[in-house]
Amino acid sequence: MLSKNKIKFINSLKKKKYRKETGLFIAEGVKLVNELLSSGFQVHLLCATPEWMNASNYRKQTNIKELIPITQGELSRISTQINPNQVVAVAEQPAYEISEAELTNTLSLVLDTINDPGNLGTIIRIADWFGINNLICSHSTVEVYNPKVIQSTMGSICRVKVHYRDLEEILSKYQNITDFGIYGSFLEGANIYKTELSEKGFIVMGNESHGISGKLIPFIKNRLYIPNYSRKSDFSPESLNVSVATGIICAEFRRRVV
Amino acid sequence: MLSKNKIKFINSLKKKKYRKETGLFIAEGVKLVNELLSSGFQVHLLCATPEWMNASNYRKQTNIKELIPITQGELSRISTQINPNQVVAVAEQPAYEISEAELTNTLSLVLDTINDPGNLGTIIRIADWFGINNLICSHSTVEVYNPKVIQSTMGSICRVKVHYRDLEEILSKYQNITDFGIYGSFLEGANIYKTELSEKGFIVMGNESHGISGKLIPFIKNRLYIPNYSRKSDFSPESLNVSVATGIICAEFRRRVV
Repeated sequence: MLSKNKIKFINSLKKKKYRKETGLFIAEGVKLVNELLSSGFQVHLLCATPEWMNASNYRKQTNIKELIPITQGELSRISTQINPNQVVAVAEQPAYEISEAELTNTLSLVLDTINDPGNLGTIIRIADWFGINNLICSHSTVEVYNPKVIQSTMGSICRVKVHYRDLEEILSKYQNITDFGIYGSFLEGANIYKTELSEKGFIVMGNESHGISGKLIPFIKNRLYIPNYSRKSDFSPESLNVSVATGIICAEFRRRVV
Repeated sequence: MLSKNKIKFINSLKKKKYRKETGLFIAEGVKLVNELLSSGFQVHLLCATPEWMNASNYRKQTNIKELIPITQGELSRISTQINPNQVVAVAEQPAYEISEAELTNTLSLVLDTINDPGNLGTIIRIADWFGINNLICSHSTVEVYNPKVIQSTMGSICRVKVHYRDLEEILSKYQNITDFGIYGSFLEGANIYKTELSEKGFIVMGNESHGISGKLIPFIKNRLYIPNYSRKSDFSPESLNVSVATGIICAEFRRRVV
């Protein structure tokens, strides 16, 4: 039985202000919650229908602080989804440190002012697919604990570390490391298929409308461009969606340098 | 001045039922409407603010049936957007025929039950970028004239022909043509980077949750798979978003066979 206060508390976490104050976030649905539990996320509160409780081995989990059995009706009062799916977790936002040694030796994604929650969620899924462990976002990028972002990661939030940093500071720190690439996606630049790609570096992706900010451009060592095969006309396509472009670029890095 | 009846008429087109009855659809915003006008779409009704009228050369257009100057307040009463942008067009749905000669000699995308309007819009943008002229959708795919689809094409709807057909019929018709590939995207299959790709054929993309339907599988000649570089764990990413996968596959076809 879910008290009015608990319902109010869970619903307050749909607002960024309260997520920030409490350091908590909401994740929902069987797949996502099960991955969260297995990945060792601290779950402050778990609200689950009998259906989930019967199928789950939650009794073995030591990272659930409080479990409240709920009805389908109660589920729909706390869910952010049109079709709520058995379980809602309130989890603690993990505090990741950036490991310089790891960043220096791997490929990471850097996001400059990505505004759309669906795009951020999809990019986290892409990072996960291509084995990219770290995603460094500008402070102006949409908050990763927004429920729309969390749900659209489809569980990848459990495997990709998302950091928020001052990007000028980060890029200036890494710009002089030998064999470390700083790539940016542009609408003009070097054809990605004809550019040498390093297995260590940053891939910088810019805002949906404005691309990479002017202040970051001096740090980009290689401008990458995905060739356009559109028939030439007065109006040709302006760009690809940022998450599609991220997918194509990551796929090309992994095709050539694993 | 926009009459109550006109407002009601435009708003009725936000519903599929009325779009179907009238054969009309709504498109909004400076860029999209300008491309629509230049591409020769028949515009049944154009509602524009003075700002748009001053900047546009609409007087040269012969494809505008009726033009109504409107205020910002009127614009927000007919717009589907949070931030309406100067102009709303009611246009006629084009009637495209499928050209067998064109289909036989080019690469086309085939969509099986794509449900999300944002995904369909993004895929139309991808087709445009990669010079794919024809998109053949199952009848169960979301309607292309849904305002969310139209807006998310960012103008590419003017250059890509979208057809709705019975996919079993279409695939069976083309399956025995020599040198014509029928590719499908799967979560297991042949590594796309190690598969021979033809410059003529269909690329079949399946539903967001269920992939390609069982009844279409017998027609697929090559199963394509985008390699996953995730660290192995109990939970690895299940899939990429369908529009991201479409982008990666189209990019690889064009990289190799133009």
